Amino acid sequence: MDDRASWAELAAQLRVDSIRSSSAAGSGHPTSSMSAADLMAVLVAKYLHYDFDEPQDPRNDHLIFSKGHASPLLYAIYKAAGAISDDEMLTFRKAGSRIEGHPTPVLPWVDVATGSLGQGLPIAVGVALAGKRLDQLPYRIWCLCGDSEMAEGSVWEAFESAAFHGLNNLTAIVDVNRLGQTGETMHGWDLALFAARARAFGWHAIEIDGHDLAAIDRAYAEAAGVEDRPTVILAKTEKGHGVAAVANRNGFHGKPLADPEAAIAELGGIRHLSVAVAKPTGPAEPHRFPATGELHLPEYEVGSKEATRKAYGDALVALGAARGDVVALDGEVGNSTYSEEFAAAYPERFIQCYIAEQQMVAVAIGLQVRGWRPYAATFAAFLSRAYDFVRMGAVSRADIVLTGSHAGVSIGEDGPSQMALEDIASMRAVYGSTVLYPSDANQAAALVAKVLHQHGIVFMRTTREKLPVIYPSTEPFDIGGSRVVRQTDADQVTLVGAGITLHESIVAADLLKADGISARVIDCFSVKPIDADTLRAAGAETAGIITVEDHWPEGGLGDAVLEVFAADANRPRIVKLAVRHMPGSATPAEQLALAGIDAAHIAAAARDLVQESRS
Amino acid sequence: MDDRASWAELAAQLRVDSIRSSSAAGSGHPTSSMSAADLMAVLVAKYLHYDFDEPQDPRNDHLIFSKGHASPLLYAIYKAAGAISDDEMLTFRKAGSRIEGHPTPVLPWVDVATGSLGQGLPIAVGVALAGKRLDQLPYRIWCLCGDSEMAEGSVWEAFESAAFHGLNNLTAIVDVNRLGQTGETMHGWDLALFAARARAFGWHAIEIDGHDLAAIDRAYAEAAGVEDRPTVILAKTEKGHGVAAVANRNGFHGKPLADPEAAIAELGGIRHLSVAVAKPTGPAEPHRFPATGELHLPEYEVGSKEATRKAYGDALVALGAARGDVVALDGEVGNSTYSEEFAAAYPERFIQCYIAEQQMVAVAIGLQVRGWRPYAATFAAFLSRAYDFVRMGAVSRADIVLTGSHAGVSIGEDGPSQMALEDIASMRAVYGSTVLYPSDANQAAALVAKVLHQHGIVFMRTTREKLPVIYPSTEPFDIGGSRVVRQTDADQVTLVGAGITLHESIVAADLLKADGISARVIDCFSVKPIDADTLRAAGAETAGIITVEDHWPEGGLGDAVLEVFAADANRPRIVKLAVRHMPGSATPAEQLALAGIDAAHIAAAARDLVQESRS
Repeated sequence: MDDRASWAELAAQLRVDSIRSSSAAGSGHPTSSMSAADLMAVLVAKYLHYDFDEPQDPRNDHLIFSKGHASPLLYAIYKAAGAISDDEMLTFRKAGSRIEGHPTPVLPWVDVATGSLGQGLPIAVGVALAGKRLDQLPYRIWCLCGDSEMAEGSVWEAFESAAFHGLNNLTAIVDVNRLGQTGETMHGWDLALFAARARAFGWHAIEIDGHDLAAIDRAYAEAAGVEDRPTVILAKTEKGHGVAAVANRNGFHGKPLADPEAAIAELGGIRHLSVAVAKPTGPAEPHRFPATGELHLPEYEVGSKEATRKAYGDALVALGAARGDVVALDGEVGNSTYSEEFAAAYPERFIQCYIAEQQMVAVAIGLQVRGWRPYAATFAAFLSRAYDFVRMGAVSRADIVLTGSHAGVSIGEDGPSQMALEDIASMRAVYGSTVLYPSDANQAAALVAKVLHQHGIVFMRTTREKLPVIYPSTEPFDIGGSRVVRQTDADQVTLVGAGITLHESIVAADLLKADGISARVIDCFSVKPIDADTLRAAGAETAGIITVEDHWPEGGLGDAVLEVFAADANRPRIVKLAVRHMPGSATPAEQLALAGIDAAHIAAAARDLVQESRS
Repeated sequence: MDDRASWAELAAQLRVDSIRSSSAAGSGHPTSSMSAADLMAVLVAKYLHYDFDEPQDPRNDHLIFSKGHASPLLYAIYKAAGAISDDEMLTFRKAGSRIEGHPTPVLPWVDVATGSLGQGLPIAVGVALAGKRLDQLPYRIWCLCGDSEMAEGSVWEAFESAAFHGLNNLTAIVDVNRLGQTGETMHGWDLALFAARARAFGWHAIEIDGHDLAAIDRAYAEAAGVEDRPTVILAKTEKGHGVAAVANRNGFHGKPLADPEAAIAELGGIRHLSVAVAKPTGPAEPHRFPATGELHLPEYEVGSKEATRKAYGDALVALGAARGDVVALDGEVGNSTYSEEFAAAYPERFIQCYIAEQQMVAVAIGLQVRGWRPYAATFAAFLSRAYDFVRMGAVSRADIVLTGSHAGVSIGEDGPSQMALEDIASMRAVYGSTVLYPSDANQAAALVAKVLHQHGIVFMRTTREKLPVIYPSTEPFDIGGSRVVRQTDADQVTLVGAGITLHESIVAADLLKADGISARVIDCFSVKPIDADTLRAAGAETAGIITVEDHWPEGGLGDAVLEVFAADANRPRIVKLAVRHMPGSATPAEQLALAGIDAAHIAAAARDLVQESRS
């Protein structure tokens, strides 16, 4: 057969190029690339629809390498497709090259960064959901997985989610090459076992010899014909297939070949074939949801009380009315996060992710690949379940909003498992992230709208308790801003809070006033970036700063304030009040007192600081 | 039947007490407790072997509530078993009470904290592994799961792991009450679907009516008879069963009953039955592995080069020789972390966790429940996958050692997906954690031994690159210590590094010396706790401090140093050098230079600081 002969040649080229690039780099994963070369050759030659000149074409298919370490194979495909030159391919892993060790979106054809196993498939589910439910376009998502990563629970969250949503536009191709980094996987070549699991999770499963080009062809055709569910192609392959020195042998993971010239000769030499990847056809345009274009945020009366989590839900509905590209996600706690309001108003743009936080964040990342604007919410504590996905989201240059509710000891009786006392620290330590902790309902609503255009990972921490509304609904708030909520010409001390601790700080300022001490109070609702100018002014004009946070002492608001002054000429004394014991159950007010972050403790710390500055 | 009548009475009491405690608290999850009351009544009356007077008896079974929000049911069991009084049970969720909102080990019968769904079962697998492979005792592990948490990938990691290890001592009981927090789960009462999945994952599965006491009895008996695999009992139940106002109705999750008196009356009123939980019998003692009792750590020659990750592997073997309670775990990267050395030396005490980091940390937590001393390793970047487990491990008061290798841009070509530039920040923000970042091989080896007795979560960051050995193998190192590696009487500036940046700092000090600038260099290998005294002396004696870290700027070494001085009278100028751009691929040396944390950049920053201090 003609096709098969040309596919075989292409596959050989992909293997050869995988060897060449990793040898040029002196590192990389050629054998993990070689096992999947036949699978990918047939895919790109016959089934993939993709315009490499127009990577933003909404009709394009998506090819995601969940086994990101097979990057040499991906780059070899890009070369064969004419997207990159042979020379550029050979800059693999060199400083300044966009041909990085693992794929990242510095290349326009890469949707998301992979390299942390078990993430590509969950994100592919998100892209497939975008295609099916939002874009409503017939593009397909092809996801190449490794067999080692089938041990990641996140993969099974993806299987569950994809089947639940009937994503027949998604095909997972599992390269069952039997060998992990150090030895055989748990299940070796037991394709039947993987197939039984996939079927039990609601997928169509096809078992093939991953080096049999005709079988590969039939499998893709079969997958394309399945109408009600996703398909997984389980392909028995040999790691390092095609080169006897390494084929199906342990000990060659993540290493260039010892004798690349001999291996290339064994594979028939260097080729420079081009593959004509089919372009998407037809006039299809992505679906657009109706929207007013006019934003009418909810308004809360100054002096009333409302929880910022409620404001999040209310504002998200308003944003959903104004913008058709806003999508809400929730981890089955929508009556706590108030995502349920969006779900009721715009059910077609709400995705219930159930108790699967990794999959929720992965869906968010997948949706933004296609330009949708996801807002995902759960208890802040449970976003820690998805921390690796958030970390990798930054490498993916993903634009997503994550809202964590019920943060801090102030949740009260539920106890420490629900408290998220490390959320600000962990989210601040994500590259390019924005971390907001609104202090009243109008501010929270304004920030929900403001972050619509913010790049990168946005984390918004919301509070369970109702808090006094202190800002008029007309007041604008900027990312990187702050508010001075108490100020005189003779402030002796500065109190810095955010969220619930701002309100404790305000009460503390009243207590101090009764003692004749004037305290400035700053609302640091933007923890990252932080308003350095306002803090510096306070640092210069008062005897010192008390930071107050409903969070462990490490990495939170206090450290963000400390960093402002680190190398300044003027470095004020800063006292950090934070949670320093493991809480149990108690009322919110008791918890704040026990943690030493209530008004009384703040006032006491301020008195001490003023006293010390006098002595 | 007598038994069934008494079980029914006990189950009614468990329901009544769940209602009473949550009503007394004004919060909690009575309906989630009531669904599983029959399941638990039969278990504790007939199958559980547990001496509540001797919770440390190694022969005891283990009862773990993976659905931790069903804590009212657990506490009702403790009351029925005579472990707590009715009065104490009614202190549920009150300040100072050990009857917390979700179970924690402040109660001696609670092995681990739960309340973050999908964690109890993975940890139960760890306890079962301890029973089977280490203790070699016949105790059983009973784990009550919710159906909502079956959506968590971590649960399927646990299914995979338990089957792989043939853990017939583990029985999971899934309370399929159909209703989650906000509505029906993905699969409602489709027991057959869950059973098919469980079987595909290698478990024995039994489907029952979870309110049929005879069926429950038969299911436990059947589970106990399965010899080669774990068993899951899938029980169809009604949330709120027994009280018509709430039974099988949505909208009553996590709320006390509106009319508790009527509900209690409907259930036959308050009872104070005692259940005689069977005590474990027989003379069994936990297995002990042979050990020398004498520790001979590896020794590295000063002036040679070695990677701290290699020292970790070497030292762990030495520790394994000395101590029979040391167990090593790895996430299938043992040839990178060097756990493979322990695996070769003590295969019976090595647990291969494959690419399933959540399960790895869960196993570690499970092993320490039984007093084993787990050391678990993978790439530091991939520990982020298990961050929620680490966070909850602190709530569990778990004593575990986690080692993350390949941290920082200095890994070189692999790129940002593998770099873990947030590991120190996230691990510092874990309650009671210890964070170590050794700088040479002898120090790393010493610290591996030192942390054997450290409580809480210990995180050790190791480096991929070989680093100069600068300390003699005889030198002792303490947690909370540091080393001044360059010092004169006239130091003008202080450089603080750890791990690879210490060595860059040393080279920088040499560069500065050539310019006539004397730099003190401090090795801050103990990032948490940090050696405040040594830093304070340096702050007082030099013009300022440069901190250098192969990590994002937030929450790492620099912030740990800043915190020391925050409220001090003397607050030196501190310049933080850290990674401030998203890296790509490059050689380790190029990466350090691109990030501005190599010797040349450190020296330049130091010159600026000295210059500024003069002006």
